[in-house]
Amino acid sequence: MTKMIAPQSVGVVVPQRAEFTTPLALRSGGTLNNYHLVYETYGTLNADRSNAVLVCHALSGSHHVAGTYADAPHNVGWWDNLIGPGKPLDTRKFFVIGVNNLGGCYGSSGPNQINPATGKLWGADFPFVTVEDWVESQARLADRLGIERFAAVVGGSLGGMQAMSWALQYPDRVGHVAVIAAAPKLTAQNIAFNEVARQAILSDPEFHGGHYYAHGVVPTRGLKLARMVGHITYLSDDSMAEKFGRSLRHGRNTYSYDVEFEIESYLRYQGDKFAGYFDANTYLLTTKALDYFDPAFEYGGHLPAALARASADFLVISFTTDWRFSPERSREIVYALLHNKRNVSYAEIDCPAGHDSFLLDETRYHKLLSAWFDRIEV
Amino acid sequence: MTKMIAPQSVGVVVPQRAEFTTPLALRSGGTLNNYHLVYETYGTLNADRSNAVLVCHALSGSHHVAGTYADAPHNVGWWDNLIGPGKPLDTRKFFVIGVNNLGGCYGSSGPNQINPATGKLWGADFPFVTVEDWVESQARLADRLGIERFAAVVGGSLGGMQAMSWALQYPDRVGHVAVIAAAPKLTAQNIAFNEVARQAILSDPEFHGGHYYAHGVVPTRGLKLARMVGHITYLSDDSMAEKFGRSLRHGRNTYSYDVEFEIESYLRYQGDKFAGYFDANTYLLTTKALDYFDPAFEYGGHLPAALARASADFLVISFTTDWRFSPERSREIVYALLHNKRNVSYAEIDCPAGHDSFLLDETRYHKLLSAWFDRIEV
Repeated sequence: MTKMIAPQSVGVVVPQRAEFTTPLALRSGGTLNNYHLVYETYGTLNADRSNAVLVCHALSGSHHVAGTYADAPHNVGWWDNLIGPGKPLDTRKFFVIGVNNLGGCYGSSGPNQINPATGKLWGADFPFVTVEDWVESQARLADRLGIERFAAVVGGSLGGMQAMSWALQYPDRVGHVAVIAAAPKLTAQNIAFNEVARQAILSDPEFHGGHYYAHGVVPTRGLKLARMVGHITYLSDDSMAEKFGRSLRHGRNTYSYDVEFEIESYLRYQGDKFAGYFDANTYLLTTKALDYFDPAFEYGGHLPAALARASADFLVISFTTDWRFSPERSREIVYALLHNKRNVSYAEIDCPAGHDSFLLDETRYHKLLSAWFDRIEV
Repeated sequence: MTKMIAPQSVGVVVPQRAEFTTPLALRSGGTLNNYHLVYETYGTLNADRSNAVLVCHALSGSHHVAGTYADAPHNVGWWDNLIGPGKPLDTRKFFVIGVNNLGGCYGSSGPNQINPATGKLWGADFPFVTVEDWVESQARLADRLGIERFAAVVGGSLGGMQAMSWALQYPDRVGHVAVIAAAPKLTAQNIAFNEVARQAILSDPEFHGGHYYAHGVVPTRGLKLARMVGHITYLSDDSMAEKFGRSLRHGRNTYSYDVEFEIESYLRYQGDKFAGYFDANTYLLTTKALDYFDPAFEYGGHLPAALARASADFLVISFTTDWRFSPERSREIVYALLHNKRNVSYAEIDCPAGHDSFLLDETRYHKLLSAWFDRIEV
């Protein structure tokens, strides 16, 4: 049990970069001959190298999981409320690693990085990557850092799928796995939303087959639409009603296509902001990785058979109002683990915020994570 | 009780057109000095003119509710399974009217019709129209046809909202109202989906501020996306899973942005088809009419107060798997009517098809409608 203190920030952090020159064979059939990963670490690796925790990010996340940057003090890590001294994932006990996924757009090899073979930006030529490829690349980063076995691998949404895949690809290298607000595979409806987002990007005249940088433009219209439709699925119907309802910006109908309802303003703002910094090819690749994820596929769809390889202790968490990956989807994972007599804890957190709940500082959720991390021996 | 016979088609029908020269003041503040409505009728108006039923259409519907066209035998009306001799809305008893809404794109005055004042297509200059405006225009059509009072006004989705509005705007002119798969107003999430669809159209470079016809183009990309996102909300998660699941067109991942999952093929097909015939300005106007509909607004949000004016006998129907307008939304209408001691029947039909259920030939649903229409005295 770590001594109780008031939660603190990990403070100013500095991203690091690791180069890899051993070719990485990808599930898509392609190969990355050399690549680099950008990552951050918080806390200190202990002498036994037994206290490392890998945090995997979701669709629009990055390696910047906690803390801030010296030159950008307001750029706070996306799971900063979870990670730090005195926080549920306590950096006095654990050595925490965040890594930007391959194909991402925050510094790791990806569409907006230079292709070493051509000296030009990868753009649309960056190969398709899968959850399994990400885990493979993360395992190599662990090798580099001298980490034989993670105390835990954790993630929410697509990050939770990576955590699950860790337990399957490297059962001997991970002691605990937390799968939060995730699913064992996407439904047709999940894929449908991704497909709308992709078509918005692919059909943007400024997409130029993915080589938009070469044309000096960015498909902002498509990215904006993709983010808008995504955002609808991140929030619950109720939380949208609570936050925005039918509030009218001008108190009455103005009969125009300018913002009338506050929800329109929110979505446009989120869409514009996202289109200003995210890479369209990364968005496409990442939604594809989501669609492809299906560890039971090679087991004829039988999830218990797929999870038989896992030996880690699991924590599975869902949120009552998450309709993107509903509690039912988490229970599929739990049942499959129980079928294999694996050690699994499951919590369905009553939280109104929908899928995005996994990012929030919800008391019961964080207390649960605190208790779980506390019990992990390092 | 109408004699039982095997259901038959109303056969070949011919659309009719009514011209109006009395200015129509619109809720948006604009005025249509003259306009025309395209409509169809099935069955025969009785001597008392007491057997007329108005069918109101939803977002992408039209006046072509039943039967076929001589020159297009496969163009079957959108509610043909409901209307005809021996069908639930039996044309041996009732005189049924379908009318294309003002602002529509199937022949009534709208963006793709000539503006009499300029001799050019209306395009983006067609004024905003509301559910209330439609009801007003439909009442004038009823006047023209010599119908003082409708035996019933019925509709699903946006059509159900029009039926509800009929009971409020003309309580003395409608005996029965069927509100199917509708809601008393949109939620923030409903508006959000409409807003994504609108932004897809508005941001299409070929939209040209709505004057695309003048530019010899059509914003097909935007319309396609709008329809794709709409379609996701018309189907239930379960019915999508049932119909498409994760079926792969090639039996394996192809790692491309071509169709991989069957659901992608379905959505693209629906989107392309729709973009080939529907008018973008009509889509925009109609989603706005949906957003604006809120009869309780002028009563401080108190629906029972808004519905106090209604005197018709109501039938309210919802479908268990409809997540666009869930049963809860229908129950709001029912409670508000009961609060006013109005005569209302309510049925929640267990049907897996989601919002689109109201268009389907679901046995219990159609039996219920049969019984309801049978009891209406004309």
